[in-house]
Amino acid sequence: MRKRTQEVVAFQGDKGAFSQEAVRRLMGDQVDVLPCQRFEEVFQRLGDKVADAAVIPIENTLAGSVYENYDHLLHFDFRIVAETSLRIVHSLIVPPGVTFRKVRRVYSHPVAINQCLDFFTKNPQVERIPFYDTAGSVKMIMEQGLQDAAGIASSLAAEIYGAKVIKKSIEDDRQNFTRFFLLRRPDWAPKSRTPAPKGWKTSLVFTTRNIPGSLFRALSAFALRDVNIVKIESRPLRGKPWEYLFYLDFIGNVEEERCRNALGHLRELADLLRVLGCYPRGA
Amino acid sequence: MRKRTQEVVAFQGDKGAFSQEAVRRLMGDQVDVLPCQRFEEVFQRLGDKVADAAVIPIENTLAGSVYENYDHLLHFDFRIVAETSLRIVHSLIVPPGVTFRKVRRVYSHPVAINQCLDFFTKNPQVERIPFYDTAGSVKMIMEQGLQDAAGIASSLAAEIYGAKVIKKSIEDDRQNFTRFFLLRRPDWAPKSRTPAPKGWKTSLVFTTRNIPGSLFRALSAFALRDVNIVKIESRPLRGKPWEYLFYLDFIGNVEEERCRNALGHLRELADLLRVLGCYPRGA
Repeated sequence: MRKRTQEVVAFQGDKGAFSQEAVRRLMGDQVDVLPCQRFEEVFQRLGDKVADAAVIPIENTLAGSVYENYDHLLHFDFRIVAETSLRIVHSLIVPPGVTFRKVRRVYSHPVAINQCLDFFTKNPQVERIPFYDTAGSVKMIMEQGLQDAAGIASSLAAEIYGAKVIKKSIEDDRQNFTRFFLLRRPDWAPKSRTPAPKGWKTSLVFTTRNIPGSLFRALSAFALRDVNIVKIESRPLRGKPWEYLFYLDFIGNVEEERCRNALGHLRELADLLRVLGCYPRGA
Repeated sequence: MRKRTQEVVAFQGDKGAFSQEAVRRLMGDQVDVLPCQRFEEVFQRLGDKVADAAVIPIENTLAGSVYENYDHLLHFDFRIVAETSLRIVHSLIVPPGVTFRKVRRVYSHPVAINQCLDFFTKNPQVERIPFYDTAGSVKMIMEQGLQDAAGIASSLAAEIYGAKVIKKSIEDDRQNFTRFFLLRRPDWAPKSRTPAPKGWKTSLVFTTRNIPGSLFRALSAFALRDVNIVKIESRPLRGKPWEYLFYLDFIGNVEEERCRNALGHLRELADLLRVLGCYPRGA
């Protein structure tokens, strides 16, 4: 029997990036991955149908929102169909045969290096070298067969490039989580009813008229109906200096009556309102 | 008569950076500037009294908030004593004697390059080369006496390094403004009554209890007293995944009764509340 054609999922970063771990969580192993250099490319590949789905990070509990991706969510017309959050565990990874004693240089993305400062303080013999990507640093030390170097990346990167984890969880702060969205084109329909054991979440973007109290009134559409807002993010509105777009997540499904009413109420108050997705709450 | 010792103002970037233009606007010409490589250093130099004041960008109408500086405002205990906003005008700058016809390479910070894409599309003979700083690119082409290169920076950078503006305002979008804060240590007191022809603005940071409707209730403290909120920004709360700090600007002076009452009301609802500054509204 011919193998079923697998779906293609785009993400930013080299193979083995944390985003690929999120792909596994959201879609399992039976997919083809399409690594992209930039976030904008991830959205473009979903738009031109080279990819069937895309996985993007949207916020990190230490660094904050991935603002660029909020902007792309507005400019491209996709649906958020699932979310997940991943604990970011940084591993020290070397080519097989290299021991920690030999390591003199550590390559990784500057954000990852900055999240492992305790490790560098305790190991002053090790030089930190900024690299364009976490998983990419592992790829590079393997390709060049470096014998005195390590990369900091996910353990998935070690698995993919045949490298070895010599220290696990070297990050300073274990409260380091990244939340990811799974995106689909608007015409996508799930093959079966989506299970939502923890209930539903809805993400939307809106602008208010630029008058006093407008954000308060917008939030009242939810508060007056006991709809719980769990995240709000503001971004500048292009062409209107010092005015803002708001991205908002609430707990609930757009088909529930009180959520439908809240959205109807918000529509009265908002110049722009777009639901970006309604999806099962992640772990 | 001995020259009065001038105040020292720290900012991020090389001499001639847009932040130095903001220094001029906020403090005039009779100050010494202290360029720093990183934003954190700017805050540190104010803290250790090497600088008497600091000027930092806080938001840009295209790129959004300078999130790192919001985080520093929380971690350092300084006061915002003034604000200004500057239109970001990108100039093409060359060493004297170089004409546009000779220019084959243009150096600048990637953000500045990305804000001048129309220029690069119309001039395909010119290669764009990312550099660590806008003003720094002008400094470098002058130091090396490059005859086929230009930098993109503020016209102040041309003035400072003795270079020449050959094209002014090559940015794609003229609605490109950056807002800056002037910071002082908490014990600082103005020598004379501060004029505020456009009224006052107050900036604060707060956290709410993590219960449904808490942000709505926090905003009600202002809305119920017709205090106009002009900006709200959320940032992750360290150590409490998926909880947030809110930075908020409102129009008014903390000494006005309705503002004092609004702050009192917010204090009842907030776990943390800190006023970051109360300052004259900028242009």
